[in-house]
Amino acid sequence: MAVSLKVPDGTAEADAEAMCPHRLVLEHVTSRWGVLVLIALLDRPHRFSELRRAINDLSGRGVSEKMLTQTLQTLERDGVIHRDAKPVIPPRVDYSLTELGAEAAEQVRGLAAWTETRMGAVQEARERYDARRRASEQE
Amino acid sequence: MAVSLKVPDGTAEADAEAMCPHRLVLEHVTSRWGVLVLIALLDRPHRFSELRRAINDLSGRGVSEKMLTQTLQTLERDGVIHRDAKPVIPPRVDYSLTELGAEAAEQVRGLAAWTETRMGAVQEARERYDARRRASEQE
Repeated sequence: MAVSLKVPDGTAEADAEAMCPHRLVLEHVTSRWGVLVLIALLDRPHRFSELRRAINDLSGRGVSEKMLTQTLQTLERDGVIHRDAKPVIPPRVDYSLTELGAEAAEQVRGLAAWTETRMGAVQEARERYDARRRASEQE
Repeated sequence: MAVSLKVPDGTAEADAEAMCPHRLVLEHVTSRWGVLVLIALLDRPHRFSELRRAINDLSGRGVSEKMLTQTLQTLERDGVIHRDAKPVIPPRVDYSLTELGAEAAEQVRGLAAWTETRMGAVQEARERYDARRRASEQE
């Protein structure tokens, strides 16, 4: 299952949106970069370059300019984040959570925190599963 | 970004698991069918065919046998669900949440309920965004 972060344009994403609209919101707010954007913005509004750095600090992984732009556009379109472009030179754009976005971000932060807290148990389960699988292959 | 539900076999999923393990758990429990499996199992244990029906009732969409099997294997490997194969004829297999899985399922149900409750606001935001976009294209 692919998680598309593009704005619908009459193609597969538009079809999926018509068929199962809240499924897509869930995919957007739980997408790899979506989660990190929401968590960073729970703290305070960020400019684009600040968001890139915050995502790197949170996850230890860099996000490309293109992917971050797509993620922000998708979340803005869903009404989850607000993009405030100030008419100044040089241009200044601030991203913040809307009220709707703050609700989503709290939930997503809870889930992300859970996965981190319980990762040890998940790793142990995976090792047990893989060992059982190897054992049954050798039978 | 593709959400793979296969068991790692030395390919891309295995690399991703080594690099960012809790990211994958989040993808598994928020995957299209993962969400529905967890929510159905919060209610009570299910057999495979019962799960297929429950998913259809919850989402109005059918899941193929193959996709449900993959989803269940992934969640079992993560230690989130328990697969109990009874040595009877005909074979009987029950799926239930582990303690870890019940924790995940509660969080995921909260997030899924939120997306349904707030879908109206998301739809309105999308319509406003698309209208602004069309207006700026005509300028």
